[in-house]
Amino acid sequence: MAVKGLGKIDQQYDGSNLRIGIIHARWNSVIIDALVKGAIKRMQSLGVKEENIIVETVPGSYELPWGTKRFVDRQKKEGKPLDAVIPIGVLIKGSTMHFEYISESTTHALMNLQEKVNLPVIFGLLTCLTEEQAFARAGIDEAKSMHNHGEDWGACAVEMSVKFGPQCPF
Amino acid sequence: MAVKGLGKIDQQYDGSNLRIGIIHARWNSVIIDALVKGAIKRMQSLGVKEENIIVETVPGSYELPWGTKRFVDRQKKEGKPLDAVIPIGVLIKGSTMHFEYISESTTHALMNLQEKVNLPVIFGLLTCLTEEQAFARAGIDEAKSMHNHGEDWGACAVEMSVKFGPQCPF
Amino acid sequence: MAVKGLGKIDQQYDGSNLRIGIIHARWNSVIIDALVKGAIKRMQSLGVKEENIIVETVPGSYELPWGTKRFVDRQKKEGKPLDAVIPIGVLIKGSTMHFEYISESTTHALMNLQEKVNLPVIFGLLTCLTEEQAFARAGIDEAKSMHNHGEDWGACAVEMSVKFGPQCPF
Amino acid sequence: MAVKGLGKIDQQYDGSNLRIGIIHARWNSVIIDALVKGAIKRMQSLGVKEENIIVETVPGSYELPWGTKRFVDRQKKEGKPLDAVIPIGVLIKGSTMHFEYISESTTHALMNLQEKVNLPVIFGLLTCLTEEQAFARAGIDEAKSMHNHGEDWGACAVEMSVKFGPQCPF
Amino acid sequence: MAVKGLGKIDQQYDGSNLRIGIIHARWNSVIIDALVKGAIKRMQSLGVKEENIIVETVPGSYELPWGTKRFVDRQKKEGKPLDAVIPIGVLIKGSTMHFEYISESTTHALMNLQEKVNLPVIFGLLTCLTEEQAFARAGIDEAKSMHNHGEDWGACAVEMSVKFGPQCPF
Repeated sequence: MAVKGLGKIDQQYDGSNLRIGIIHARWNSVIIDALVKGAIKRMQSLGVKEENIIVETVPGSYELPWGTKRFVDRQKKEGKPLDAVIPIGVLIKGSTMHFEYISESTTHALMNLQEKVNLPVIFGLLTCLTEEQAFARAGIDEAKSMHNHGEDWGACAVEMSVKFGPQCPF
Repeated sequence: MAVKGLGKIDQQYDGSNLRIGIIHARWNSVIIDALVKGAIKRMQSLGVKEENIIVETVPGSYELPWGTKRFVDRQKKEGKPLDAVIPIGVLIKGSTMHFEYISESTTHALMNLQEKVNLPVIFGLLTCLTEEQAFARAGIDEAKSMHNHGEDWGACAVEMSVKFGPQCPF
Repeated sequence: MAVKGLGKIDQQYDGSNLRIGIIHARWNSVIIDALVKGAIKRMQSLGVKEENIIVETVPGSYELPWGTKRFVDRQKKEGKPLDAVIPIGVLIKGSTMHFEYISESTTHALMNLQEKVNLPVIFGLLTCLTEEQAFARAGIDEAKSMHNHGEDWGACAVEMSVKFGPQCPF
Repeated sequence: MAVKGLGKIDQQYDGSNLRIGIIHARWNSVIIDALVKGAIKRMQSLGVKEENIIVETVPGSYELPWGTKRFVDRQKKEGKPLDAVIPIGVLIKGSTMHFEYISESTTHALMNLQEKVNLPVIFGLLTCLTEEQAFARAGIDEAKSMHNHGEDWGACAVEMSVKFGPQCPF
Repeated sequence: MAVKGLGKIDQQYDGSNLRIGIIHARWNSVIIDALVKGAIKRMQSLGVKEENIIVETVPGSYELPWGTKRFVDRQKKEGKPLDAVIPIGVLIKGSTMHFEYISESTTHALMNLQEKVNLPVIFGLLTCLTEEQAFARAGIDEAKSMHNHGEDWGACAVEMSVKFGPQCPF
């Protein structure tokens, strides 16, 4: 599933009034940077203005759920609420079970976070068995075997904001 | 278990007063389309009117829980509340662990969603190890080896609405 | 563990004042029917009156948690509250991952349901790798290699009602 | 990890003012009995009075979370609140997946129970792959290869009560 | 993933006004002690004062979530609230399934604890398959093959406190 692009979006979405946050871990930073850029580029192509894309960081993926919550809260308190947020992290299987427990608890926490912050939380976590898999999914393996998944996340953030974000009149 | 049909329903249900939502992901869209059609066809055969079947989409399966919540809320706000909702998605095992973490967190979130939206949420997620398995469960493999599971979901939505939906006088 | 009976109960329980619900899925119905009968028979042997055993159904095991919640609520609204409820379902491993995700999410949801409905929810789910295992645990394999697990669930419902049910004066 | 004792406790704890509950399943009762005795013996050696150790039972491990909750509530209602509770059960892998789903859901539920009952819930569940492993961890295999884990649980209950129990002035 | 250091932090953080708690299990105490020291040393290097690092203990890792909650509460009640807390434990795979159930439930509980205590809870749990892996991650294997992961946790606590801790003006 992860090896194919998302395909076409179902309609053209207008992101020009949206404000979207990205919060990313800093482990595996080359891969992360490519994913973040992919997400930003795609959002801009859908009309999101550069000044409306806010970027924050945390040390590792486990910090994403709490960091995302507080990041969203802060933007709101400052009078500039977000329409969606994309937590981005790259987890790669090591020799202990660290990968499994972090991946599972972080995925659950990000899923459940949506109703606490009341906006779409896009799942920007790569859970790979090798570094090569992660490079490929960031579109930066030599063979360019796959597209940058950050682009999917950017498109997803715009669509979910327009359809189900806090600006929706319901 | 997944290889057999649900068997007979326990009684004839009248869906003529029901309003049922379908919200589906767009990944693996050929399979998804067949499942959605199967669900609609079955609900109509149980009396649900075409205008009372509302279809919405999200990009991928991970977006289903939040999208479903907001979709249900919106229908309610607009004065046309749903009696049940069928989130539909198709997840197929890839080479990373993406499949496992998405499948597990989405299944849990859809289960728990029921009491938050206070109506039956039918489990329309295929979690397959191969594309062939998914085609077969949508009734569109060449051998026609299985029936379309969307039909089960449609019947399930009608039964659960009649027995345990928000229109029930308790 | 599953291959042995529960052994003796710790004391004789009097079920004559109890009202117990059974809600069962209809997949694998031959096995389900045997389990339901086993539970009823055992409860009657402990004094529960036939008219105080209420049976309801849902299509499949995934529907058990929400169905159980609404079933319990309805009995209460109608002025005939239950003392315990036994959701019964039979899940058998197929070729996709459906079995794993349904089993896990349903088990968690039934566990957590107890404090929401404020009465004992007895775990009547068989999670088997083969049909043979399920037949044996319903006491209907040819070799009669095991007892009917429905009997354990019936005894468990009576004991838990007497000790920890809503009629307890605390 | 499970094969070594807990080592020394960090200081001498005085259990003479504590009231501690044990609630145990009755499956695999020989092993359970040894574990319960081990816990009691250790608590007494730390000063807990015999009349302040309250023992209750449930049929199986799945019943522990709900049973524990109600057991704690009852003690409180009766004016004799507990300082900690030790749910004890022994789960042994069988041929179906029963072991996995019960173990996982029970462990989670006991963990989460702590904040609902507002006192330490000590994890007294053995999740073993063979009966031999369970006998060894109850200190009753012929080779006496391990110590009785119930003793660790008893010490843990006393320490957690003194440090983090409801009697603590905060 | 676990075999590499966190890399540089994104900016210099000033920990001189922070108050940080460490609560650690006592199993595998040689490893634990090294991790605790590593965390303290790193926090001090970022300006955290010795008197503002508070250390508490629990018997084992399963006790960490409840212990952490109460430890945080107590510091607050005493008028000296923490800015972050680092629960530290070392779990090593044994022959039963104890490791898996403890690791998973503890990881989830620590993740979810953050919003209950409203401050960053740093994940200081090693979930290793061998003792050698744990020694290496505490920086105390003979080959000095890895750095002390406690140092990462210390840096993480300071960064998360400054960015997302309770002192933040939002």
